[in-house]
Amino acid sequence: MDISLKDLSKQLEDFAKVRNWEKYHSPRNLLLAMVGEVGELSEIFQWRGEVDKGLPNWEESDKEHLGEELSDVLLYLIRLADICGIDLGDAAAKKILKNSIKYPEPKTKREFI
Amino acid sequence: MDISLKDLSKQLEDFAKVRNWEKYHSPRNLLLAMVGEVGELSEIFQWRGEVDKGLPNWEESDKEHLGEELSDVLLYLIRLADICGIDLGDAAAKKILKNSIKYPEPKTKREFI
Amino acid sequence: MDISLKDLSKQLEDFAKVRNWEKYHSPRNLLLAMVGEVGELSEIFQWRGEVDKGLPNWEESDKEHLGEELSDVLLYLIRLADICGIDLGDAAAKKILKNSIKYPEPKTKREFI
Amino acid sequence: MDISLKDLSKQLEDFAKVRNWEKYHSPRNLLLAMVGEVGELSEIFQWRGEVDKGLPNWEESDKEHLGEELSDVLLYLIRLADICGIDLGDAAAKKILKNSIKYPEPKTKREFI
Repeated sequence: MDISLKDLSKQLEDFAKVRNWEKYHSPRNLLLAMVGEVGELSEIFQWRGEVDKGLPNWEESDKEHLGEELSDVLLYLIRLADICGIDLGDAAAKKILKNSIKYPEPKTKREFI
Repeated sequence: MDISLKDLSKQLEDFAKVRNWEKYHSPRNLLLAMVGEVGELSEIFQWRGEVDKGLPNWEESDKEHLGEELSDVLLYLIRLADICGIDLGDAAAKKILKNSIKYPEPKTKREFI
Repeated sequence: MDISLKDLSKQLEDFAKVRNWEKYHSPRNLLLAMVGEVGELSEIFQWRGEVDKGLPNWEESDKEHLGEELSDVLLYLIRLADICGIDLGDAAAKKILKNSIKYPEPKTKREFI
Repeated sequence: MDISLKDLSKQLEDFAKVRNWEKYHSPRNLLLAMVGEVGELSEIFQWRGEVDKGLPNWEESDKEHLGEELSDVLLYLIRLADICGIDLGDAAAKKILKNSIKYPEPKTKREFI
């Protein structure tokens, strides 16, 4: 599955509409809700010391929990962008481009030989 | 443009590889970098009091800045998920489904007549 | 009661020592634990829209909950400073002084007459 | 020097009053300002991997920077509590007591002999 930011944005909009939750979705409410989820994400990592890539030795249930908290941050982030009238996919593509100018690719190894 | 999470994930992986930055991208490093970006996002909203949907009366430059900070959070979040071996799009789709069960759609208005 | 930062620092050190928790109290573990508590603090404010000073109309139990979450952030912050070897009271006094130079007092009203 | 929470609270109140900043110090403004500072604190730790207690090998200037960011979090936290009408020192003392009940001291080693 290769889900797009616009797909998720549309699903979240429908979700809120159907439940009559749009009135709660002001920018600062959503931002604070996202900070709350960042806190829950941090709690997963807080007492573990350094964690290796790929999470070897993690229980399957811990990985699933991590996927849920990462998702919660993502969903509030997308909703926040949407409510602010920001096209997040467009902004992200521009930011990657900007970063690639700020941090240019190093010369190829060949040139150093 | 309708960019997917996998597109962004691939671009970020290439970005890090080419710059030899993979050694810095441990889970907790990326998580703290994301928290740093959440802080920058919060700074945009901190002295404004309540903010209306669509950000009426915001300067164009402030909206652009907001787009960049939202993107920074998104990019570190995607990279964190990737380094942890979590398929973020898949996790997000599952989380929306789980939420829809937790908070079922209210009955249609018709039924209340 | 007028508790000092050093009092709290000492109490937290004893608390950890007696429970053999010092091994968990590395700087980044404590930082992430603090971010977790900041998340819980944010959750209290997330769906309320703007909140007035003094929290009029808040339930007593909500105020108590708020006091606990504010405390949790404080306690991890103090412990983090301590483990890093930073004298937080001293640093805070210096920071207020630095701020007072950065943002000088405006002239007295008299001078504007 | 052994500074108290009430000392700091009083200094911050005066600081805001003199500069006519009280109008900006609503609960959610201060909370978001604090989240901004937590972000700056996290940035100090983000690319370092695990960090040892006491920060051996850190430059003096990095330690000073850390002291400033820890202070910024503390000062907004104290101000937030104050504006909410919460006595932070009192709340913190109660929270430590509550924690000591939740996590009782283990029996002394002698008893295990």
